[in-house]
Order: sequence, then structure tokens, then C-alpha cells
Amino acid sequence: MSTTLKFTALLLALSLCRGLRHDYIDNYIDNYIDEVTEEEAELVAQPSKYGSLWPLPQKVQLSEVSFKLTSSSFRIVDAKDSTAGPSCSLLQDAYRRYYEYMFGIAKRQQLNKGRRTGPSELTELQVWITSPDSECDSYPSLTSDESYELSVNQPYAVLKAPKVWGALHGLETFSQLVYEDEYGAKSINSTTISDFPRFAHRGILLDSSRHFLPIKVILANLETMAMNKINVFHWHIVDDQSFPYLSRTFPQLSQQGAYHPYTHVYTPADVKMVIEFARLRGIRVIPEFDTPGHTQSWGKGQPDLLTPCYSGSKPSGTFGPVNPILNTTYDFMSQFFKEISAVFPDAYVHLGGDEVDFTCWKSNPDIQKFMDQQGFGQDYSKLESFYIQKLLDIVTTTEKGYTIWQEVFDNGVKLKPDTLIHVWKGNQQQYQNEMANVTSSGYRTLLSTPWYLNRISYGQDWQGHYKADPQDFKGTEAQKKLVIGGEACLWGEYVDATNLTPRLWPRASAVAERLWSAKDVTDINDAFSRLSVHRCRMVDRGIPAEPLFSSYCPHEYKGI
Amino acid sequence: MSTTLKFTALLLALSLCRGLRHDYIDNYIDNYIDEVTEEEAELVAQPSKYGSLWPLPQKVQLSEVSFKLTSSSFRIVDAKDSTAGPSCSLLQDAYRRYYEYMFGIAKRQQLNKGRRTGPSELTELQVWITSPDSECDSYPSLTSDESYELSVNQPYAVLKAPKVWGALHGLETFSQLVYEDEYGAKSINSTTISDFPRFAHRGILLDSSRHFLPIKVILANLETMAMNKINVFHWHIVDDQSFPYLSRTFPQLSQQGAYHPYTHVYTPADVKMVIEFARLRGIRVIPEFDTPGHTQSWGKGQPDLLTPCYSGSKPSGTFGPVNPILNTTYDFMSQFFKEISAVFPDAYVHLGGDEVDFTCWKSNPDIQKFMDQQGFGQDYSKLESFYIQKLLDIVTTTEKGYTIWQEVFDNGVKLKPDTLIHVWKGNQQQYQNEMANVTSSGYRTLLSTPWYLNRISYGQDWQGHYKADPQDFKGTEAQKKLVIGGEACLWGEYVDATNLTPRLWPRASAVAERLWSAKDVTDINDAFSRLSVHRCRMVDRGIPAEPLFSSYCPHEYKGI
Repeated sequence: MSTTLKFTALLLALSLCRGLRHDYIDNYIDNYIDEVTEEEAELVAQPSKYGSLWPLPQKVQLSEVSFKLTSSSFRIVDAKDSTAGPSCSLLQDAYRRYYEYMFGIAKRQQLNKGRRTGPSELTELQVWITSPDSECDSYPSLTSDESYELSVNQPYAVLKAPKVWGALHGLETFSQLVYEDEYGAKSINSTTISDFPRFAHRGILLDSSRHFLPIKVILANLETMAMNKINVFHWHIVDDQSFPYLSRTFPQLSQQGAYHPYTHVYTPADVKMVIEFARLRGIRVIPEFDTPGHTQSWGKGQPDLLTPCYSGSKPSGTFGPVNPILNTTYDFMSQFFKEISAVFPDAYVHLGGDEVDFTCWKSNPDIQKFMDQQGFGQDYSKLESFYIQKLLDIVTTTEKGYTIWQEVFDNGVKLKPDTLIHVWKGNQQQYQNEMANVTSSGYRTLLSTPWYLNRISYGQDWQGHYKADPQDFKGTEAQKKLVIGGEACLWGEYVDATNLTPRLWPRASAVAERLWSAKDVTDINDAFSRLSVHRCRMVDRGIPAEPLFSSYCPHEYKGI
Repeated sequence: MSTTLKFTALLLALSLCRGLRHDYIDNYIDNYIDEVTEEEAELVAQPSKYGSLWPLPQKVQLSEVSFKLTSSSFRIVDAKDSTAGPSCSLLQDAYRRYYEYMFGIAKRQQLNKGRRTGPSELTELQVWITSPDSECDSYPSLTSDESYELSVNQPYAVLKAPKVWGALHGLETFSQLVYEDEYGAKSINSTTISDFPRFAHRGILLDSSRHFLPIKVILANLETMAMNKINVFHWHIVDDQSFPYLSRTFPQLSQQGAYHPYTHVYTPADVKMVIEFARLRGIRVIPEFDTPGHTQSWGKGQPDLLTPCYSGSKPSGTFGPVNPILNTTYDFMSQFFKEISAVFPDAYVHLGGDEVDFTCWKSNPDIQKFMDQQGFGQDYSKLESFYIQKLLDIVTTTEKGYTIWQEVFDNGVKLKPDTLIHVWKGNQQQYQNEMANVTSSGYRTLLSTPWYLNRISYGQDWQGHYKADPQDFKGTEAQKKLVIGGEACLWGEYVDATNLTPRLWPRASAVAERLWSAKDVTDINDAFSRLSVHRCRMVDRGIPAEPLFSSYCPHEYKGI
């Protein structure tokens, strides 16, 4: 290699943008168009008039007038009348984070206050929290106001939001508006945006039981959720395979049930860190402790919790679902969920309730006797309901709301009116019928069926995820309003720290736009264009989001 | 988090093995068995009697007698009579590499020569190259002797190999025999192994055109190929989408045809580094420069190379395959392949020849005139053959052998007898027929059809890759001998640095065993057991190989 050439390459690399260039978008699309001839891909993409905004805001007005930003002068500051001041570390942290996304870490020290600003320069983004309570020190919730208004104009841009949650989203949007012009100068066009989410609950389920997920992986994905305006981390923390949650009340659960009692557990400090990291990004953490099925790992540290299965007239040595006929079971659950309700601040906990296998219950003579006493006959779903109703009563005393998988509703368990029913089963017609049934019974619902991202196939499957709409079912307007959102699920059988992040992103971004943007945002070509560049932005921010199709990013991922 | 607990966890983590423990294997399998009840997986795995050996050697004799190894005393040394001495840096580098794999980097400085060795301690692995020419400074080739014999016994282990290539494989095997006992002590059992590959050509195709692959990613995958005894890196370096190969003779090809002329190219120094890194691991680098199709990117930097397509009577502005009717085309190819034959030392080059689209040729009046002159009528495959035969003549003058995709054979192009035909099309029956046809015509062949690893599906698809056998077709023994191996292909439309490595490994490991081990090594349960642990070993060595199924590794991958 010629030394001269290498040096030149280095200089060029340093001068390349960290954000977006319009000519980069053009190149990207040109390359894509070259390919479609060969590959017969369905999409014909052109640079979107909305640049790389993702998810697309509700109202966007862009002008041709552009301003420059310099890392030495540009600042993100609290507006004079903002109800969140310098003591709001949630916002202060976010200012730093977005400054670094926009200008890179290396340049931070160069802040130059004395410099005269140029004529077409944008020097400030003023962040103005307008509500008396900024909620800076609160947790986000299902009813949080996430709206914001962004106005980019000289001499400064203004981001107005009733609460900090909207401000966080607005900062992300602002950073997405910044691009590099043909000379590499950071630029932004005069823009007015008014934005709010279509659905209040926009979640991602990660499963830390089939494979343990190191904290670092969870935090990186929370970071990425924020880039996609996802606001719920559904933490499927335990399951049959392992129990990594370190319970203060029942430490034996992870001592015996985790893959390893020290290296494969989430300590109370770990959990606290995840919750705070998420809060600082406007993300709720909803833990799932799924019972009475999916509990093999619970049984290792809690004797008598699971039903002993019988082989003929003798215990076989294996165990089935939680034993619903013992008082000790409910004593345990009371104490356990008391702890959970204290550890996890969110108003909701996910109680699971899916896929209860009756085989073991059927084999057990004590269970049969109990069934007789209760008059359940041979209907084991009545026993399941018996258990779930007692569990729901227990959780109700902790003053948490609860989410349950659809089977609990399907089996006719009596539910509180504010229960969230999580739909995950069936094909399109079946889940649409289920959404119709759940909402016609007056319950609020969440959809996941079309968004099982653990299921993979060759090609651009994000398009299918993008096209699914949670309100596409037969029902009244009132029913549609009971759909509070959805979740992309990445079950853990085939993913761990080695492959989780690229498998999730940008596929989950497709779900993120569906849940945030207006219902009529459905142009798949426009989405391809914006998502391609959004994906490169995630890569540039250090997230190994996988490619949509043949292409390149100005800055390729550096990992292996 | 309690400080005490954290400290304990740290101590435990430090004392955990970096290699394998038998009780770890047991735990792994126990966990797996717990799951199969729930998941109805097909496999019922038990710890393999062959531990974690992958690919399985041809002959293995294991005894119960175990020895200890200590990082302070254990050494890998040249045997007294070895024909490769301290000046053979290929082996010296390998000794260091495998020492680090076995003991970890941190402990290297503790080498303690004065220490008295314990009674059941193994202190040396002596590496004995027996052939007069060790081939230490040569390149591996299709005819390289890769065999080795390994004898682990007190007071030292001996690795005998005719050439360095076998020694490299033997070092990998030795490192796979080391495990940690229940107290964390590095141990190895008395063992005798005699080993050689079933097929001489065991390759992996990576595609750096659809997405540019940073050098770091290529090197990491070469490292992993060595862990799996893969000996060919088929570098599909250019294609329609981009031309990242920086040609000294025709620098405009990458200047114009790469995604970016500085950040997305392989310089001569890069290519040299890849070739040497591969050589040090016994891996051949076979570049593919596919023509006359798949050449859109070539046309950007080489005017008149591609056929101008016509729309009616006028050039449409788009281009088709290489223009086969111009003398300038063959002048260019002569110069280009002269360079390629000098840059790439391997005796073979892959010339592609697949998927030639005739549409553009048909549209061009000059081509039509040429077809008439040659008496080709409307049979454009004759024109394709005309081009390919001229190209093969050109490459023959560079004294390289060549590999071509099956279409060239299918279209009846005249081929040298030593041409390798690369089979990639069709379903099982079709590719088996093709293998039969190719070999009955006396040509040697490589199989890839069942190993298109870019195609993904949900679940354990490695099992399908594992079951395919390149000699399963109707033919004589002589025909079977013409099968020299196969290649796993990872085409680049949907992979880049963000996701390539976990998508390739351990799926490609399944192909590696099929191509190395004896034909009757087909026990899928035993394979699952060994491969699960082999995968954790790759993770432990820093390679993000994805999981086969719900499970854990003692050391999880640390990346995001």
C-alpha cells in the first residue's frame, strides 16, 4: 500500500460526515436502483422528501432554507421559561447524548463561546417544557404526554413539549434533521414539526431466559429503542429454561434456577440500572413473570411450587405447571409479587398465563381429587382459571395493573376492566378476530402476532411487519380506541448477545413506525428510503443494525 | 447491589474455565433435556464421548487417564527432529495463538521454567514435521498434505505431521482436547488421534460486493475457518453492486466502481495481508472475478467493456454483460488477469460465468450482426461460450487453473480437463444429477447447492446442512473421487459487518465437519452435543457464533 494513498484515505475518512448527507442518500438510492434491475426487487426507491426521519412525525413542514451548525458554537439549552431547569438531569444527559450523536465525541472539547456566528448559522436548540410539572423525576407511564413541537428557524430552534417525554422524542427528531452538505458542513433545513404517537404502548419484548442477555446488551437495545421512539421494554425475564432474576425474598430461585448463580443473574442493582437507563430515555420497563406454565426453572429453588407429575400411581420425578391446589403456592406468590411490585416502578406487570400444558395436572391424583371437590369435572381450563383468578387477586393488592397473554381471556377468566389483553396467536384472520372479540368485551389490547421477530426468513421481511396494522379488524370506533398499541417480540431460543442486536434492528424499526406514525403512512418505497438511511444512522451510533439490502454506509460497523 | 456479592461473583468469574469442563457439558445437556420436554425438539443430546472435537477426526482413541496442564510450565515446542525449526514463523505464530486459546492472554508472562512438574502433568507438546520440506514458507494448495497424528501421553504429547498444514490442524485438535476439571484445572486425557480430511477443498464464499466487508471482519472469519479446519476462502470480491478490488493496472475500476474509492476498497496491501493471514492458518485464497454477467460495477471505470443495451434503434443508456465482440475486451481481460494471477498466489482462480442475461445482447444491433457473421443464429449461449472460451484461453496463459460455475459446463463450453465445475443450482435431485453429469464427463467438481447459508429460516437449519453429502449421487467410485469438496456460500445481499459472523457460525461448522470427517459421521445427536460446545469455544475465543438453541456458555459474548 502506498503511504501517500493511505494518508489521503485517512484525511477523507476524517472529513466524512457522521450524520447524513443528501448526496449520500442519492448515492444510496442510485446504487439501489442499479440493483433492482438485476435482483427484481419490488421496491423502487427515491430519496424521501422526509429525508431520514424515522418514525415519520405526524406533521412535517420542511423548507429549502438551510442553516449551518458548528460543533464549537451549537448548544442545546433550557428555554428561559422551561419548567425543567439545570437540575433536570434527564434532560441534561439527553442534551449531551444528542450533541455527541450529531457532532461526535471527539469534538466536544472545542466549544468556543467567543466565536462570531455566521449569517446562516443555527446556534441553539432551546428546549422548553411547558407544563408546570415537567415529570423530570417521574417514570414514564401509559398515559404520559409524549407530544412535542419543533420549530427550526434562525437564530435558534425551539423544541416545545408539555413533559420531558415529548422533549426526548423531539431531540431525537432534531438529530435526524441534521445532515452534512456536499462539503461536509453540518446543516439543517428550516422545519416545523408537530408530533405525537398514534399508540401509547410501543414495546419490544426481550427474553433473558432462553439465553442470558448481558446487561450491556440490554442497555444497547434500550438506547436503540429510544432512537426509534419505542417506549416499553417488556422484559420476559424468566421462563422454563432459566431464572436469572435475583429475588431478595427468594434468592434460591436464581441460586438454583439461573444458568449460573453468579455470572448469569440480574442483581437488584442490575435491575435498578436497567430501569433508570430506560427512564432517562422515556422507556417503561414492564417485567413478565409468567405462570402457571413456563415455570420449570422456578421449581429448582422453590420446593413444592410445581405440580409433581405421575407415571401411573407414582411420582415420575418430573414437574408440571405451578401447583394450583396448595395454599403455600399462594403464600409464595403473594410475597413474590409484593417484591416485584416494589422493584419495578411501572404501574403494570405482565403475568403471562400462556401455553399451560394440562398433561401433568391430569396425571396427578391430588389434582384430580381437588378437581372433583371443586366440581370442575375434567375441564382443566377451569383449574387454570381458578389459579389465575387467585393470582390476579394477589397482584391487585399490590396496586399494579396487569397484562396477560390472550389465553387467559380466551379461557374466560374473570378480569378487572383495566386488564390489558396481549394478542399473540394465530394467522392474520385469527388475530384480527381475537382483537375484535377482546375489544367488543370492553378490554384494552396489545398486538404482537404479526411482530414475532424471532421468526426469520430470507429477504426483506420488514415489509410484512410494516404492513400489519393493529386497528385493521372489524369493530366500532370505540373498539379501535381500545387498541393501545403493540409489541415486537424477540423470543430467545435462537438469539443471545452474539446475534440479538442485528436481528432486532432495523426490523423492529418497521414496527416502531407503524405504532408511532399516522395510520396512512404506508408508502413502502418511501419507508425503504428513510429506513435505509435510519439504519446507517444506527450503525454510525455504534449499533450493529443489519442491512435491508445491498448497499453501504458512509461509516461501516466496526465490530466483527 | 451488595459489594460482597459483587466481589464473590468476580472471583468466581476469574476462576471459571476458558476452555471446557466436562461438568459444563453435562450441565449444558441437562438444560437442553429440560427444554426438549417443552419444546418438542427432535434432538436428545448427551455429552459426546468425543467431547467437543469438531470436526471429528478420522480416528480417535480416548482414555480415562488424565493429565494436568499449567500455564506456567506447559510449552509447545519443535520436536528435535522436526524439519521446521524456530525460523518457521508460521508454526511459531501458531504455537502462540494456541497457547493463548488454551490459557488466555493474561497468563502468558507467568512462564516459570524452574518449577518442578507434578506427577500427572503434561508439560510439552512436541511438534514434529517429518517431511524434508515442511512447506513452512509455501502456500497451501489443493494437493497439500493436511494429515497429522497426535499422541497425548506422559511426559509429553507429540504431534507428527508431514507438512506444516497438518500440524496446524493438529494444534487445533490438541486445543480442543483441553478441558477444565471440576476444580478448574486445565486437563487433557491420554489420547491417540490419526487424522486427515475426507475432501481436499473445504471452502467458504464471502461476498464483498453487495456489502463491503472491512478487513477486520475478513480476518476474524479466516481465524474462525481455521478453528473449523476450513482451508479455502473463496473471495467473491466484486460483482454488479461494487468493485472494491483496487487494481494496480486499472485503478479506475475501484475509483469509479467501489461504493467509495477510499473507504470501501481493498488496497494491494490489504489483499496481501488477507492472503498471508490465511496462509498462516493453512487457508487458500481463491478470488472470483465473475464475467461476463455480474459486471455492472466494472463498466463504471472501464468504458466500452460492457455491452450497450438498446431501446428500439437507440442506446438506452444502460449496459448489459461484458461486450464479447470487441477486441478491446480481450485486451483488457488479458492485462487484468495477468495482474490477478500475480497478486493471488493460489493455483486456481474462480471465473464465475453464472447467470448471463441475454436481454441486452439481443437488443444490440452490433451483437446481432456478429451473431450472424459467426453463424450463431439466435442461440446466445453460443455467444456466451465464444466469450468464455476466449477468456479461458487467456487465463490459461497465466498458468492458473480455473473454477467456473456450473452454467459454463451446462452450456457446453470447451473446458480444460483440470477445470473445476462448481455446482450451485437446483433442488436436491437436480444438483445430484448435475454432480453425476459433471463427473461422468470426467471433470472434478465442488458442491455448494445445499450450503447457501445466506438463505435463512427459523430454527436449527444447521441440521439440513449437516445431512447433505457431496458424494450422494448415482455414479461410479471413479466419479465419486472427482468430487474434491464443497463450499458454504454466504452471499452478501443481507449481510455485512453487523451480522455476517453470527450468521455464518456455527452454521458453516456443520459444512466443515461434513467435508472433513468420515462419511459415516452422521449421528445428529452426537453432532449437536459436540457442536454446542464447539460454538461456546468460538465465543470464548471472541467470535460471536450464534447459539444453536436455548443454552448458555460459561463465558458469554461480550460485544453488543
